[in-house]
Amino acid sequence: MQDWAERHGVALRPHAKAHKCPEVALRQLALGARGICCQKVSEALPFVAAGVRDIHISNEVVGPAKLALLGELARRADISVCVDHPGNLDALAQAMERAQARVTVLVEVDVGQGRCGVTDPQTVLALARRADAAAGLRFGGLQAYHGSVQHMRTQAERAAVCAEVARAAAAHADALRAAGLACPTITGSGTGSAQFDAASGVFTELQAGSYPFMDADYGDNEWAETLRFEQSLYLLSTVMSTPAAGRVVLDAGLKSSTAECGPPRVAGRAGLTYLAANDEHGVARVEPGAPAPALGEMVRLVPSHVDPTFNLHDSLVVFRDDVVVDLWPVAARGLSR
Amino acid sequence: MQDWAERHGVALRPHAKAHKCPEVALRQLALGARGICCQKVSEALPFVAAGVRDIHISNEVVGPAKLALLGELARRADISVCVDHPGNLDALAQAMERAQARVTVLVEVDVGQGRCGVTDPQTVLALARRADAAAGLRFGGLQAYHGSVQHMRTQAERAAVCAEVARAAAAHADALRAAGLACPTITGSGTGSAQFDAASGVFTELQAGSYPFMDADYGDNEWAETLRFEQSLYLLSTVMSTPAAGRVVLDAGLKSSTAECGPPRVAGRAGLTYLAANDEHGVARVEPGAPAPALGEMVRLVPSHVDPTFNLHDSLVVFRDDVVVDLWPVAARGLSR
Repeated sequence: MQDWAERHGVALRPHAKAHKCPEVALRQLALGARGICCQKVSEALPFVAAGVRDIHISNEVVGPAKLALLGELARRADISVCVDHPGNLDALAQAMERAQARVTVLVEVDVGQGRCGVTDPQTVLALARRADAAAGLRFGGLQAYHGSVQHMRTQAERAAVCAEVARAAAAHADALRAAGLACPTITGSGTGSAQFDAASGVFTELQAGSYPFMDADYGDNEWAETLRFEQSLYLLSTVMSTPAAGRVVLDAGLKSSTAECGPPRVAGRAGLTYLAANDEHGVARVEPGAPAPALGEMVRLVPSHVDPTFNLHDSLVVFRDDVVVDLWPVAARGLSR
Repeated sequence: MQDWAERHGVALRPHAKAHKCPEVALRQLALGARGICCQKVSEALPFVAAGVRDIHISNEVVGPAKLALLGELARRADISVCVDHPGNLDALAQAMERAQARVTVLVEVDVGQGRCGVTDPQTVLALARRADAAAGLRFGGLQAYHGSVQHMRTQAERAAVCAEVARAAAAHADALRAAGLACPTITGSGTGSAQFDAASGVFTELQAGSYPFMDADYGDNEWAETLRFEQSLYLLSTVMSTPAAGRVVLDAGLKSSTAECGPPRVAGRAGLTYLAANDEHGVARVEPGAPAPALGEMVRLVPSHVDPTFNLHDSLVVFRDDVVVDLWPVAARGLSR
């Protein structure tokens, strides 16, 4: 991903919400990433503690407790944050004054996802001017993120939506520049759309997060030869019951690998299908003619959704050539405020 | 639930997998519970540390690391565990010999769920005899749990399946007794089926777990006047964006309340519907004519699935009459081995 970004002249700012692990972020920075993204202000704490000094909170930060924390972080690192509401912008300015700190503000524009963000160019301009004028704030540009495009299955679908996203983001940036405001940063993208967003000529940075690990859902996407990623993240489960012909039960359920994108998939073992994730059990079917795993045998699983699965675990077991080489704390696990 | 159990002459052994919180378990014991259940051997650790001395691991424990931990626990507390495989029974006996400890064994019978457990009475008898004969093991009876009945919506459906469950459990117990083996414990049940299981005359203990907290999924069940529970568990979220007429975005997504049973529900506010749980966002619709919540306003949510939601959080904020009175650690959070 770093290479893809560099070849297209954009920066990579990997999203740490995927892994919540400073050891991973430090390696991404060492490979050339400009900084990282976090999705919640509390999530940024262990990364700042680990020495990361450039963090974009790719989200609106609302409420006095979170804004006070943001002020503390902004005293220790270069922090940027999204806004889509003038009241939040004013509260942000007050929090920075109280903390005697400074934060970069990106106006979030809604480029088709229908979640947060502004759609009207006049409102974008008004927020940008207000940020530009406020002490303690610095207007930095735009965030234009489209989440649902990431998992559209075909290249053609993603290309078409990404073209719309780029057009919308460019129109907002053009309107700002026409009004005399610089718009140095246009940030967005994800693992599923980076191929197109990097080449769009509009984005200045990519926020992809899942690419170092991947998951079953991303694995179902159609990938180009030019940019594809290997599955590196597995959950090791144990066969805890072999109660009937054709059925085994694994000791990993939805408290070990979240199930909102379906159950995890069995890796490296043909003829075994993980059917249903209960809280602490995984019921799997042994296909007719396939060898049944024995009681106590270990089965590698591919999580269906990487980000919330990392959020269930306290550490990452790092292996190379099937040898465990390290344990990395998932230090931001549970930091969702 | 304690009262319901006592009125029917059965013991209550609440399932701690629901809350993972020793402060809750100690209160359940003080109210009369016989002991608690845990679903994983590691999950039992903080409860033993908190002084709980009677724990049923309502699951098969497979693999040397888990069995060694079980041996350590059995030196410190009265522990029972399920088996459904002779190899596991032998490994359990060896682990107890190594630990110089003793554990009670319940044979798990599959009474219709199709997960773990034995169906053939001869196999049940063989396992019971093998447990009875093994040094370090004590045969205690049967576990007969049916998970999918818990969320069958109507009273009539649950009554019908519970009658089948009780019939199957009784048949297994009768076969054991006919062979000269005592079967003092028949454990099972859950919040959705306790009404029927307590009255069945078959079960000696109830393993209900969700009842002190409830969730949206259980809330959708049809409840009898004689046994119904109030929602006590809420997730407090903040309105972080009001981007368009009819839409607000909450700062709690599926890293704060799991979504395998659908999104959480908005509590105590008519005309606001939580539509979609993204990783860190909840997109909600303001129904036409309803007042829109303001930026920064707090919105109480009812989680859709209590057990995995507790597993996301490090502590429980305890309130009485809208005043916060305590913080209780969810000490077994993440202990899924």
